[in-house]
Order: sequence, then C-alpha cells, then structure tokens
Amino acid sequence: SEPITPEAGRVEKGGHRHWMAKEIAEQPAVLDQALQHYIRDADLVMPNDAVDFAKVNRVVMVACGTAYYACLVAKYWIERLANLPVEVDVASEFRYREPPIPEGTLAVFVSQSGETADTLAALNYCKGKCPIVAVVNVEGSSIARAADVVLPILAGREIGVASTKAFTCQLAVLAVLALKAARDRGTLTAEQMDAHLDTLTRIPALIAQALNIEDELRDIARDLSEARDILFLGRGAMYPLALEGALKLKEISYIHAEGYASGELKHGPIALVDDSVPVIVFAPTDPLFGKTVSNMQEVMARGGKVVLVSDTQGLSSQRTTWHTAQMPDVAELWAPILYAVPAQLLAYHTAIAKGTDVDQPRNLAKSVTVE
Amino acid sequence: SEPITPEAGRVEKGGHRHWMAKEIAEQPAVLDQALQHYIRDADLVMPNDAVDFAKVNRVVMVACGTAYYACLVAKYWIERLANLPVEVDVASEFRYREPPIPEGTLAVFVSQSGETADTLAALNYCKGKCPIVAVVNVEGSSIARAADVVLPILAGREIGVASTKAFTCQLAVLAVLALKAARDRGTLTAEQMDAHLDTLTRIPALIAQALNIEDELRDIARDLSEARDILFLGRGAMYPLALEGALKLKEISYIHAEGYASGELKHGPIALVDDSVPVIVFAPTDPLFGKTVSNMQEVMARGGKVVLVSDTQGLSSQRTTWHTAQMPDVAELWAPILYAVPAQLLAYHTAIAKGTDVDQPRNLAKSVTVE
Repeated sequence: SEPITPEAGRVEKGGHRHWMAKEIAEQPAVLDQALQHYIRDADLVMPNDAVDFAKVNRVVMVACGTAYYACLVAKYWIERLANLPVEVDVASEFRYREPPIPEGTLAVFVSQSGETADTLAALNYCKGKCPIVAVVNVEGSSIARAADVVLPILAGREIGVASTKAFTCQLAVLAVLALKAARDRGTLTAEQMDAHLDTLTRIPALIAQALNIEDELRDIARDLSEARDILFLGRGAMYPLALEGALKLKEISYIHAEGYASGELKHGPIALVDDSVPVIVFAPTDPLFGKTVSNMQEVMARGGKVVLVSDTQGLSSQRTTWHTAQMPDVAELWAPILYAVPAQLLAYHTAIAKGTDVDQPRNLAKSVTVE
Repeated sequence: SEPITPEAGRVEKGGHRHWMAKEIAEQPAVLDQALQHYIRDADLVMPNDAVDFAKVNRVVMVACGTAYYACLVAKYWIERLANLPVEVDVASEFRYREPPIPEGTLAVFVSQSGETADTLAALNYCKGKCPIVAVVNVEGSSIARAADVVLPILAGREIGVASTKAFTCQLAVLAVLALKAARDRGTLTAEQMDAHLDTLTRIPALIAQALNIEDELRDIARDLSEARDILFLGRGAMYPLALEGALKLKEISYIHAEGYASGELKHGPIALVDDSVPVIVFAPTDPLFGKTVSNMQEVMARGGKVVLVSDTQGLSSQRTTWHTAQMPDVAELWAPILYAVPAQLLAYHTAIAKGTDVDQPRNLAKSVTVE
C-alpha cells in the first residue's frame, strides 16, 4: 500500500488543510469509540487479565513528550479516585537511573506508536520486576507485545507529527484505568462510579461543542502569533494540560512556550512577564479558581496579557482579561480531556498565522525510535 | 538594627557589585561550614532525634522554585544510594491535591526563608500523618518550628532575590541526608560511605576552582545575552540542574530559558532550535556522556549552538561546540553541587550584559509569603 504522506491532498484529509486539523476534528468520533470499548451498559469493561489494583500499593507511569503529560494528568486521577500514590517519569530518565521497584508496584507505559525507544527500554527494565500495562495506539507494536496487559487507545492512525487525538484518547483510556483502580480498591460508592462513567461518556459531545469556538480561538491565535514568548498556567489536573499546551505551541509555531503550575509563577517565571509575553490560563470553575484569579491578577498588575480559558461561571467574574475562550461546563476532574481542544486549536492557528509547516514541523519525527 | 537593602554600598558587599556576586563567591566558605556541621571526623553527624530511614519506605519532598529543584537532585541521590523511592512535588500542587500519605512515608520540606506560604501549608497537611523534616536557612522560621527535625543549611543571610548559596547549601545538606538514609538502610559498604564523605568534603575546594573560570563564563554570557531563547539540558542528577540554570537565567536576565532532560529534547522542544536559540549542556563525564553527545549532535545538525559545560575528558572529545566551560573533575553523583556555580555565573553575567537589576529582578520577591 502507498504510504500516507503529509503532502496528500485535501480529499484524503477529509476537506481539511492539514492532517492536524483533520485529527483535531475527529476527536468526538474517536473518543466516543474508545470510551465505548471500555464502558458498556454503564459499566467498566477491561481485558480479563487486567491487573488487580487491590494488590497494588504504588503505580509508576513512564512515557515521553505528549504521552508523558497524559500520565501526569492520570496521576491526579488515580491518586484522587483510588487513593494510590503514582510516580511519573520521562522514559529517558527512568531507564538510566534504574529506580527501585518495590513489591506492590504496577508500571504503566504510554506511547502512541508503541515504538518509542526510550519507553521500550524503560519497560524492559521493569520486565520481571512488576506487572506491566501498555497504553498504545498501535496494537501490534513492540511496547504492546512486551506488556502483560495492553489497553489500545483506538484513536485511528495519527499522521500529524504534533499529537492531538492520540493525546485525548490516551487520557480517556487512563481515565477508565483510574476508575478501575478505584473499583478494585473500593474507594468510590456505586453512585460516584456511575456519575463518573456518565460524565466520561458525555465528553465526546462536549468536545464537539468546544470545536464550535474555533473562530474565536483563531482570532486569539492571530494575536498570539505576535508574542515573543508565551506562558501556560494551570492548577491540579490542568497543570499537565498547561505543559501540553506549551509543548504543542512550541512544536508547530516555534514560539517558545512553557507551562507552569499556576502557584509556581511567583517563584521565578513571573520575571519574564511583560506585554510581549502573554499568559494562557486553563481554569475551569473549581474550588481553586479564586487562587488562579489571584495569579492572573499578579500577571496583569505587571503589564501581562491574560487569555483565560474557562466556563460560563469562571468567565463571568473576569472582565479585564485580554482574551477569553468559553468551554462547556464539565466535571472538574475530567476537564483536561475537554480543555485539550482549545490547547490544540490555539497552537494550530498560531502556527497557521506564522506560516509554519503544521504537519511536519522542523527538526521533529512522528515516532522517536532512536534514543 | 538597620535593614540590609540591595542598595547598600560595595563595602558591605565585600567589594562585589551585587549581593548575588558576593553570595556566589561565598560558596566555598559557607558550604565548608555546612558540611563540617554534618560531617565530623569523617563520620555523619545528624541531630539525635533525626528520623530512622530503616523505618521509612517512601520519601515525599515538597518545595517551591529553586528549593524544588534541589529536591529533584536529592531524589536521584536518595534513590541511588538508599534504594528508597522518592516523590517530589511543588508545594502549591501538593497542598491542594491532598495526596495519599501511606504508612512508612517520610516528608521533607525545603525552604530558604522557612516562611514560604505554600510549603508551610503543605507541611501542615502532612502534620500528624508522617514524620516531618525541614531543611531551612532560617532556623527560627515557621517551617522549622512546625517540623519534627530541622536541618539548617547554614548558608548565612541571603539577600539577592535569585538564590545561589542557599541552593548549593541545600544540596549539601540533602546529600548528607541521602547518605544517612543509606547508612540507616545498610545500602552502602563502609568503604563506599567513606569515599562519599571524603568527596563531599572536598567540594568546597572544587567550587573555589570553578569560580576561577569566571572570565571565560563572562565571555560566553556576552554571547548568550543576544540569544532569543535558551535551552538547558542535563541527564540524571544534572537534569534538575538544567532546570535550575534556566530558572536563574530567566529570573535575572528575562531571557526565556527552559530546562529539559536531554533525552526529551527530540520529543518536541528541538523544534525551537535554530542559531538564535543556544543550548547549554551540563554533562560531566559519566556512563551516559555518549548519549548526551548524540543529543548535542542533533542540536548542531539543526544549526543550533551548543555551550558544553564538562570536565577535561568530556571536553577533549568535543571540538565543534560553540563554547565550552571546563569544570574540575568530580564524582558524577555530586556533580550538581559543583556545576551549580557555572549555572549561576552564566545567569549573572548574562544579566549584567543585558543591564538588568540583578539583585532585585522585576516582579519578584525574595521570600514568597503569599499563596
């Protein structure tokens, strides 16, 4: 068969200019498919041989790049829902520092291609020391074959170098895994479990709604394309999303963006802030929203421009930000899956405004099979 | 008594132009003093009531900013020397996500001032759940008073907003703590322990040697001051030092610098690299030096300029880098303490070349007592 290249025509890209745009737009469909694979008749369905979290006292998650940020989100979920400590590491560090793997550890490896060299090496280090779960897009891949349990993310082939639908599908599968951990450990009531499952299955429709504000995001991106640098902020499970938003932007627009936990801004990076360094804040309404507002005010008091991505309630209290983007309401815990969409679209349209090669950014390869 | 302000004269600054320069230069003396407090007659001396690591199965370390990076270095040390899993978190995240604190956890909080609001709140969350160690510069501070065990870093008063001598003294005390963990757990032979203690006590003299290349670092900094952005790379225990080097530079020069694990560069950030984005690599000769050389070659193949900070052997193999800085030889494990010095001096002289206010960078406070 012919290789599919980024130069393929618009017809192949479903009418989109770029694979990345097509893959962003596909998310409601592929996420729905992934969730239906793991949630049936309002109940969790995991492979029969999936690990028993009641026997686990510590989870280690290892990945690279975007998949690493998906793991950081999952850390919040697993710790919150299943009361189980989770340690996340980048594969190139984990594999060489050869960390202790005490009894009771479960290791989870996440890779779109399933061929990421550092992640595979990290998996091989754990082999024989603890049970191993692989979360991959390519089911016959090396990482899938080496794992004890394989959880496919079912995103379909991803061609754009900057990962989009694979990220949200990784999040969806890790969300299900976190709920399974909670079920195995009895940390949620039946009502809580039902509510989480119900919320998760509604996320594809919310993502379809979020895609509707693409025009507004394009306008914001036009302004962002003139920025010298950009900071992304988030708290809790939105902090890793800030990291992913920054990575996406830097990968395809070549603007130096960096993500920070909102509370860390004042410990150094706020020195960067002036009117040429906008700050993008991902902040759904939650108990910490007020803290994030304080962080935004610190930025604005120093001449910084804030883009606030939030929901109706969050935006209603903020009238002095430079730009806002309105997301549908969503349960706080699962917001990172939904807010990935504006992160992707801001990066995409900023890159378009800058005229860079969105599908094949300079210096990057889709699957990093070298060390 | 009169408050000491950054505007004080040169006499008060010991002949230096800035407090930061004075505090960088003081490091051989204060480090020696700190190490002599904890290592006497070639043996570890810890407070009588210090925790017993034989009863610990997991360490949690919490801090903000520069102190957070000191914790990330210590993670490598404790895991390597004492075979004990360590989880590190920024205080503003830790305190609000209220993570599980299972039986067997020891919590370590690091803060120069001992008054960092988020770190204190994180400590209070742990209070009553596990034993608590505080590593502080100000012994009568709130964090010291709330802890079960206080380990002073003995850096003397630090006035420059960008932390320098407090960072290296934090590292020295955490190094001693890692060796105590190893002793309690019986993971080192007597010979290994002696060798580590001997190496540590020699570090102040090595730092004095490293200070002698200030002129070379000033020349490099002049070129760095023209950079659009800067990336810092390191592997293993040098990865957190790359993060700290980037923070230091961004705090005082306002150049957007970002630290990455060397192996993560190809998973996204390398898209930023061109001839206006130099890459600074901290890489003492160690078993992974060859991997780091590959990462440098990837950068140079894409038109990037590399500053390699290494030792005689490391530099001898690399003749095509843009700039080099030569450090004395030091045992790989403890290299972050020594390599902190070029990180500090590069930031300092870049800021001088840019004409920024080194001791009072815009937007920043010395001690962050707000949330």
